[in-house]
Amino acid sequence: MSESPERDARHKARMQRKKAVVDDKIALATDEYGLLLVHSGNGKGKSSSAFGMVARALGHGMKVGVVQFIKGAATTGEEAFFRRFPEEVSFHVMGEGFTWETQDRQRDIAKAREAWAVARRLLDDDEIGLVVLDELNIALKYGYLELDEVLADIEARPVLQHVVVTGRGALPGMIGAADTVTEMNLVKHAFKAGVKAQKGIEF
Amino acid sequence: MSESPERDARHKARMQRKKAVVDDKIALATDEYGLLLVHSGNGKGKSSSAFGMVARALGHGMKVGVVQFIKGAATTGEEAFFRRFPEEVSFHVMGEGFTWETQDRQRDIAKAREAWAVARRLLDDDEIGLVVLDELNIALKYGYLELDEVLADIEARPVLQHVVVTGRGALPGMIGAADTVTEMNLVKHAFKAGVKAQKGIEF
Repeated sequence: MSESPERDARHKARMQRKKAVVDDKIALATDEYGLLLVHSGNGKGKSSSAFGMVARALGHGMKVGVVQFIKGAATTGEEAFFRRFPEEVSFHVMGEGFTWETQDRQRDIAKAREAWAVARRLLDDDEIGLVVLDELNIALKYGYLELDEVLADIEARPVLQHVVVTGRGALPGMIGAADTVTEMNLVKHAFKAGVKAQKGIEF
Repeated sequence: MSESPERDARHKARMQRKKAVVDDKIALATDEYGLLLVHSGNGKGKSSSAFGMVARALGHGMKVGVVQFIKGAATTGEEAFFRRFPEEVSFHVMGEGFTWETQDRQRDIAKAREAWAVARRLLDDDEIGLVVLDELNIALKYGYLELDEVLADIEARPVLQHVVVTGRGALPGMIGAADTVTEMNLVKHAFKAGVKAQKGIEF
């Protein structure tokens, strides 16, 4: 992810596209456009809330795209459920997730970039009304993706498309770009000793 | 909701039932039982997160019950979606909700008690793995239902059934009874002037 003329050219093209989209937005008046929502914090509900919004969007007849940047991030139930609707939900769980164990940073970066390429396709598709980028904040926090590039792609999305970004440790730049930021804070977590993670709740 | 011998007898029966359930729980060892989760706070995502858990539970083949204590509480999309699965989701939107305008307290209490009767049926049904009591905290905060009675019914539910209670202003007793409490806090809500509530996001 070093600097390069190609990257500069890509950036310029994106910025031009962004400007065109902003102009479109202005032309559309200001009363309807896609929002960027960020769910952060150390509590539960960041991803669950995004998946509740998926259900809500489907209830309104929208199509939805989901990219999970960390495989196995406690959401196997949602994946099983929403895969029932392949016409309506484009569901992507990327690679094996990040290698917390192996600490192979180059491999992590490569995986994150693959995931982002999928996300970018969804962000380019104006038939999709809602895009969930689950645990994207983690990939950004670890520097596996560049925030400027990610934000430019998000900003250049179709005017009416909503995006939800989840994950603890949202970067200030992501918070700055968002329309709405919610922090889920753990107030109490009193699992009795010996109680394991519960199906339907934790995963 | 005044004191009465009938109510005392009902309470005693519930407490006996609760004791039996607690004994059952102990007998089941401590490694699997239904959790009581509370989503409170002034931010977004309290109800959405509960509905994400509905999707998760359905993905695991569970049956789910939902009671919405405030009709039209910004969740028409979820209702439309989850009503597609009548065999798996028992979805109840109660009455016309509370009468913020008319201030008719007796009517509100009657409506809340009707809603609670439906909730109690779900809490009695051991085929249901997850019960969502959406905006219940509001009914409790306004004193339309008695906390002790509500908690006794929740506590007496089937051992493996999970319950999610949503709504701002959770009472201390509800927080005390919960296994997990998450507070959704609004960090930023920068809807540009003139932007109306967005379908798929706000409702």
